[in-house]
Amino acid sequence: MQLLGQALRRIPAEPVVATRPLPGFARSTVDGYAVRAADTYGVSEGLPGYLTVTGAVLMGAEPTATVKPGTAVAMPTGGVLPPGADAVVMIEYTAEAMPGTIEVVRPVAPGEGVVRADEDARVGQQIIPNGRVLRPQDLGMLAAAGVTSVRVHARPVVTIFSTGDEVVPPQTETLRPGQVRDATAAALAALVADAGGTPVHGGIVPDDPAALEEALRGALAASDLIVISAGSSVGARDETANVVARLGPPGIWCHGLAIKPGKPTLLAECAPASGQPRASVDQGVPGEHHAPGESPIPVIGLPGNPRSALVVFRLIGMDLVRLVGGCTAAPPEPSARARLARDLPSVTGRLDVVQVEVSSGVATPLFGASALLSVLTAADGYLVIPEEATGLDAGTDVDVTLYR
Amino acid sequence: MQLLGQALRRIPAEPVVATRPLPGFARSTVDGYAVRAADTYGVSEGLPGYLTVTGAVLMGAEPTATVKPGTAVAMPTGGVLPPGADAVVMIEYTAEAMPGTIEVVRPVAPGEGVVRADEDARVGQQIIPNGRVLRPQDLGMLAAAGVTSVRVHARPVVTIFSTGDEVVPPQTETLRPGQVRDATAAALAALVADAGGTPVHGGIVPDDPAALEEALRGALAASDLIVISAGSSVGARDETANVVARLGPPGIWCHGLAIKPGKPTLLAECAPASGQPRASVDQGVPGEHHAPGESPIPVIGLPGNPRSALVVFRLIGMDLVRLVGGCTAAPPEPSARARLARDLPSVTGRLDVVQVEVSSGVATPLFGASALLSVLTAADGYLVIPEEATGLDAGTDVDVTLYR
Repeated sequence: MQLLGQALRRIPAEPVVATRPLPGFARSTVDGYAVRAADTYGVSEGLPGYLTVTGAVLMGAEPTATVKPGTAVAMPTGGVLPPGADAVVMIEYTAEAMPGTIEVVRPVAPGEGVVRADEDARVGQQIIPNGRVLRPQDLGMLAAAGVTSVRVHARPVVTIFSTGDEVVPPQTETLRPGQVRDATAAALAALVADAGGTPVHGGIVPDDPAALEEALRGALAASDLIVISAGSSVGARDETANVVARLGPPGIWCHGLAIKPGKPTLLAECAPASGQPRASVDQGVPGEHHAPGESPIPVIGLPGNPRSALVVFRLIGMDLVRLVGGCTAAPPEPSARARLARDLPSVTGRLDVVQVEVSSGVATPLFGASALLSVLTAADGYLVIPEEATGLDAGTDVDVTLYR
Repeated sequence: MQLLGQALRRIPAEPVVATRPLPGFARSTVDGYAVRAADTYGVSEGLPGYLTVTGAVLMGAEPTATVKPGTAVAMPTGGVLPPGADAVVMIEYTAEAMPGTIEVVRPVAPGEGVVRADEDARVGQQIIPNGRVLRPQDLGMLAAAGVTSVRVHARPVVTIFSTGDEVVPPQTETLRPGQVRDATAAALAALVADAGGTPVHGGIVPDDPAALEEALRGALAASDLIVISAGSSVGARDETANVVARLGPPGIWCHGLAIKPGKPTLLAECAPASGQPRASVDQGVPGEHHAPGESPIPVIGLPGNPRSALVVFRLIGMDLVRLVGGCTAAPPEPSARARLARDLPSVTGRLDVVQVEVSSGVATPLFGASALLSVLTAADGYLVIPEEATGLDAGTDVDVTLYR
């Protein structure tokens, strides 16, 4: 990663360690006078101490004066502490007694008004951890340390397939009866990008096992993860699982999750393209760190209807993208504590994801068939009814995960 | 904005309205049989109803059969409801009684198992509001509606200046005594990007009013907002205010905020470059919506030390970037409720921003001079002690805003 500006939210592949102390010199934190602290002991408003001003430190320059007993040197905030001084007294606690002499009305302790040369970072100290996104302040710290290039994990390439004879591209002006535009791919691509991945549109595949197998095999070499929004009918779902199983071991992890919506979810891993390292390894941007190319490729088969697909991908897929991308500490998500506006029934043994509007601390569930996208666009967030619950009563305090 | 993929987190300049009903046809939400609901009234496990299957609907195709009294048509999830049918009975509540005949063991009400042709959106209904970021599900909704181009606000151009004789570029290998690398610009640029703006590095300006005035005047024509991380000494701060005042009315809004850290913050507005519309208007990307070019340019003068600058910019600057960029509803920020690990003193009449680590529901304040960036990089978030408080006791429940 050559430019720090491009490193925002990327994942360092290794911790960054300070090779020089920071800030690198003892530095004043206030406007005032560099002094020997001992010269101020016992002074007060009633009994000021008097010090001779022997010079002034300029910003960005080496001090030319030394502080000896009974003397002081004028300091700007951020200036280099001159030799002999061990503290800086704030200008507010001084006054000019006569030209070249100040009176000091408050004592300072050694180290007061000063940061040590290695107080921000010692040599060898980790300044940025690996596995966590680079945040704005992290980029500031790297800049301060003179680190303008960081080894980061490559963004995982996530190939997204939509399947279904009824699915047509979003730019299709006029639909024939029964056709629907592909809503899922665009939304999934955005979720992949949010999770730090590079979404690649694999295209729309008809409900034909041979066509799906060919499409998936073609994507394996260039993908770190494959997402299929599966055909929504029972037959199409089963075909997706059969095709994925044929791609080679390890194979299907699970087919069907105890989530509503999202039950027909498929989780699998496939053998990478035979013998060859993955394309992302060879075509990596210089400075990016790629995982070895021989590990299995995770495959997520999502429910066919857009809303269920997005709910499941948010719950499971995004963390998988992060993990493949080297992110071991997912960033926190916005949330709100709110009072449930009405009873929510549920079934034990199943996780229910309920879309809600949140207003004035009240969470109002939004209902509608899981085929409706408008429920997701109207929602401010969602709440989860845990597996063991049989429902939630109106008035219960709930944690809502908010959409950003 | 031509491609939906580029529209993620952009701000629509106007609401998007459905021009066609969505999904556009009455659609089955389950696998099963399209029926006339009346044909199922009164059926039960003990007394099934019998219906003749007269055809099957295929995905993405117009139905070829009509449902008449006493008949049913096989339906996949997502298929078009055939003429004559008003409900779909789930396959689980049917069984093949003999070839071409099913028995139905549960009644359905009209509309059951079906979404209406305009249930996701009616013609003329607002499907996406203006002023709020486009979220992944919003892109899905736009794709479903066939909207592949959205008028969005231009990203506000935010020019960032660093000032100070001691400040050198981050790529400076070896520092002379008293020099520090510019940490603030890189971190501010990231915060600007997070708020939806385009950061532009104005460069490092020495502590020289004439040089600063020239730099600011040069940036006015091409900026929607100007940020100056001001010299940290008292003299440098005052000079910044003087220079900003000279740029023309409306002028200084306030100089000095009751925030710690962040007291020496300057908020101002300057006249735009004389007579000319702003560059961002002429050079706008087609499809982007730009505000008129004659409005005053907000200027934020930040404290000189990086940590204070970032605290203030996060509290005030990011919302200003959003506002200039047409975002009237800021996205929610991650937060956590936590128990304060120790007493935090404060002063009435001042807002205190305290960096904290959060672990197992406990918020531990991080201390250190406001010049230290390491406090910000170690922090998981921050809490705010309100103006009216004189401090917070250990054990108090506090709301921590978490860094993403």
